[in-house]
Amino acid sequence: MNTVRPRHLLDFADYGRDDVLSILDAAEAFFEVSRRPVRKVPTLRGKTVINLFYENSTRTRTSFELAGKRLSADVVNMSASSSSVTKGETLSDTVRTLEAMRPDVIVMRHSASGAPHFVASRVGCAVVNAGDGTHAHPTQALLDAFTIRRQLGRLEGLVVAICGDIDHSRVARSDAELLAFFGAEVRVTGPRTLMPRDAGALGVRVMPTLASAVEGADVVMMLRIQQERLAGTRLPSLREYSRTFGLNRATLELAKPGALVMHPGPMNRGVEIAPDVADGPSSVILDQVEAGVAVRMAVLYRMAGEGAPNPAEA
Amino acid sequence: MNTVRPRHLLDFADYGRDDVLSILDAAEAFFEVSRRPVRKVPTLRGKTVINLFYENSTRTRTSFELAGKRLSADVVNMSASSSSVTKGETLSDTVRTLEAMRPDVIVMRHSASGAPHFVASRVGCAVVNAGDGTHAHPTQALLDAFTIRRQLGRLEGLVVAICGDIDHSRVARSDAELLAFFGAEVRVTGPRTLMPRDAGALGVRVMPTLASAVEGADVVMMLRIQQERLAGTRLPSLREYSRTFGLNRATLELAKPGALVMHPGPMNRGVEIAPDVADGPSSVILDQVEAGVAVRMAVLYRMAGEGAPNPAEA
Amino acid sequence: MNTVRPRHLLDFADYGRDDVLSILDAAEAFFEVSRRPVRKVPTLRGKTVINLFYENSTRTRTSFELAGKRLSADVVNMSASSSSVTKGETLSDTVRTLEAMRPDVIVMRHSASGAPHFVASRVGCAVVNAGDGTHAHPTQALLDAFTIRRQLGRLEGLVVAICGDIDHSRVARSDAELLAFFGAEVRVTGPRTLMPRDAGALGVRVMPTLASAVEGADVVMMLRIQQERLAGTRLPSLREYSRTFGLNRATLELAKPGALVMHPGPMNRGVEIAPDVADGPSSVILDQVEAGVAVRMAVLYRMAGEGAPNPAEA
Repeated sequence: MNTVRPRHLLDFADYGRDDVLSILDAAEAFFEVSRRPVRKVPTLRGKTVINLFYENSTRTRTSFELAGKRLSADVVNMSASSSSVTKGETLSDTVRTLEAMRPDVIVMRHSASGAPHFVASRVGCAVVNAGDGTHAHPTQALLDAFTIRRQLGRLEGLVVAICGDIDHSRVARSDAELLAFFGAEVRVTGPRTLMPRDAGALGVRVMPTLASAVEGADVVMMLRIQQERLAGTRLPSLREYSRTFGLNRATLELAKPGALVMHPGPMNRGVEIAPDVADGPSSVILDQVEAGVAVRMAVLYRMAGEGAPNPAEA
Repeated sequence: MNTVRPRHLLDFADYGRDDVLSILDAAEAFFEVSRRPVRKVPTLRGKTVINLFYENSTRTRTSFELAGKRLSADVVNMSASSSSVTKGETLSDTVRTLEAMRPDVIVMRHSASGAPHFVASRVGCAVVNAGDGTHAHPTQALLDAFTIRRQLGRLEGLVVAICGDIDHSRVARSDAELLAFFGAEVRVTGPRTLMPRDAGALGVRVMPTLASAVEGADVVMMLRIQQERLAGTRLPSLREYSRTFGLNRATLELAKPGALVMHPGPMNRGVEIAPDVADGPSSVILDQVEAGVAVRMAVLYRMAGEGAPNPAEA
Repeated sequence: MNTVRPRHLLDFADYGRDDVLSILDAAEAFFEVSRRPVRKVPTLRGKTVINLFYENSTRTRTSFELAGKRLSADVVNMSASSSSVTKGETLSDTVRTLEAMRPDVIVMRHSASGAPHFVASRVGCAVVNAGDGTHAHPTQALLDAFTIRRQLGRLEGLVVAICGDIDHSRVARSDAELLAFFGAEVRVTGPRTLMPRDAGALGVRVMPTLASAVEGADVVMMLRIQQERLAGTRLPSLREYSRTFGLNRATLELAKPGALVMHPGPMNRGVEIAPDVADGPSSVILDQVEAGVAVRMAVLYRMAGEGAPNPAEA
């Protein structure tokens, strides 16, 4: 764990348990703000947040945009299609150009793993990773942790089952990384060829079946599966995938009583998750979305709000 | 007419004459705001408006965005191309995800008739229909009514001629529905195969020619015609359409003295309307656009401004 | 020079030396605002800026958007793809529709030379040209002048070399026009078929080689070259272009000591400019970007801020 507060949020390599708890605690305050009639605080007035999205995303871009606006920051959206990318400018030049406009935070999504690290090494402002390739999606892990803590009252010592294309999932990687701070047992499962080869390094246990992963779990997290990933596995179709690794009520009953069902979205209903489970009493999928705005407010506040008043009192 | 104030604005089924007048009266106050040097009131500060557009639109999206911003709301735009739609998420999941971010109003345009009703049945926030398929476009009807009342001093008992592809026109449907509250005689005309079969239910009279529709009318409203709609009619081309159903000065002279020429835009000049009529002294087409911002401010205020100060005094 | 303050900023035809200096002086104040912890002034609160971009642009659109937001204006972005352009509406109708929504400024980029002039003749609000065809890009010239004055302490009597596809460059044209107010010697160079035929009218000297243009220059400005422009020249490839007209350290040494290297971006590194020159001590390329926000704040202030408090004191 670092004693210097990290300047960026790229993954959790420079973060420790206390950093995570500090963000989650700030997010609690912002969560309350989001439920007030007037959902706005002056915390980041006069600060600039640039959302630089090289991949489409409904929820993540909107969530960061709302987070910034509810903090009174000036938020500018840039998508790859309208950017100089199409004119052959290097990523380095694009972000140094943006930096010259004096943003406080660049929030960045990119299809290449490591792109935000590269950017962070080139600019003076804070960089927040909103998802890079198969590498990391730290604000997703934070909102997952926020949701779990709020629902179960703790993060320590939980059993968390994650099911899907683990090898390509930045969500699974960031969740495993964060949950390790709290001594969680993270189990992963899915088609064999989509399991990570470095499960040991990730600190996760590969389970052969969904049932074995779910059994006794406090949290069951289902990932979106993409049809094209199934080519090369022994599962030829989404239908087949659904039968083998889709979460239904029967399988969910193997989990601990009161276990949570989570999904980072967007869902393929009827594929990785049965509709009645997605909408059932165990599902906290929409709570995750609500938590997302609060967690991102906390992250932006941490990155840009130095010296700003305590959000809870703002 | 309902005694409970409707939570959404989808069409006018739950609205009555008094609801319409109350919106138009509020719009008068906002219209004055739009002409002040400082065109902004704090009415919806801390409220969130999401513009969810599944169809392109210059004027409607911009009009709602300006309306929200001039009320000091936080406005977030989402278009279909950048949304999870492309990832196969259901409409229901998309909007419930958005709802979890705690917007006050979702403004929605969709190519499918009834999509906003479906959404309204799934979310807790207010839904405003910004045009759905061939069904309804209530804020267009409200801005038309606002413009007519402002120009002619009343809405009661007018003769309104609407010309074009009535059968596919959500504008015509909403205008007819609203004008019925005020006892208007609504006449429609256009190629026979593009006339509604349920003219009686709509409360409109189908007229055989443009001249017969315009004769003695207080308002002449021309709709945009789309070339592809003419296939299957006896009018093989836009040129032919223009000759038969295009409004020119000679035809306009059949209307009442002081009659208004309206068009929801975007115009096909030289097709459904002659340039000198579009720009002539009877045209209130740009007044309609200006009214649009004020009317949408009034609608957003009604949906999200409960307990907010009177706009006129803000 | 005009004694009436021009209402638009289309090119510098209606501007004089004093107008330019007045904008640059205001930009100095806004430049300081951009370096404050709170980068926002209330100057244009309640004013509306519409960014109407018919061509893609990362830096220009973002720069204007940030400029507007840091002045507290309401900023609305419209791009061609989402506009009524695709529905065949005339440019005149599109902008008169926008005008009816009562913006204070329309900032416009268009691929057709003269489009902003046409628009300015049709609307009552201020129009700022953000680049039109091969004609003009006045805010780029202003930010170039701002950067030069800040770095060299003056604008008078400088030798400025501009290299690239001068004939199609709106940047070169606007720079030449502005620098002429200050008695600069503007030299241009590039492939012979890409030189302007009216060099005399532009007040520039065509030089046969990059070396002859750079020799003794105070400023060396490299323009982006587009591969497709080289067809029809005697330079068959970017590689060939780079060898003949690319700026490297050896050529730069022919310039005056302390000479500035500029580029409007986005750069083709290794084509028109060597990476070590782009990133070297003479380069003020990122300073240009930073100046861009300040200069655009000054321009928007001039267009919309009549009677607003002095920005430096805001």
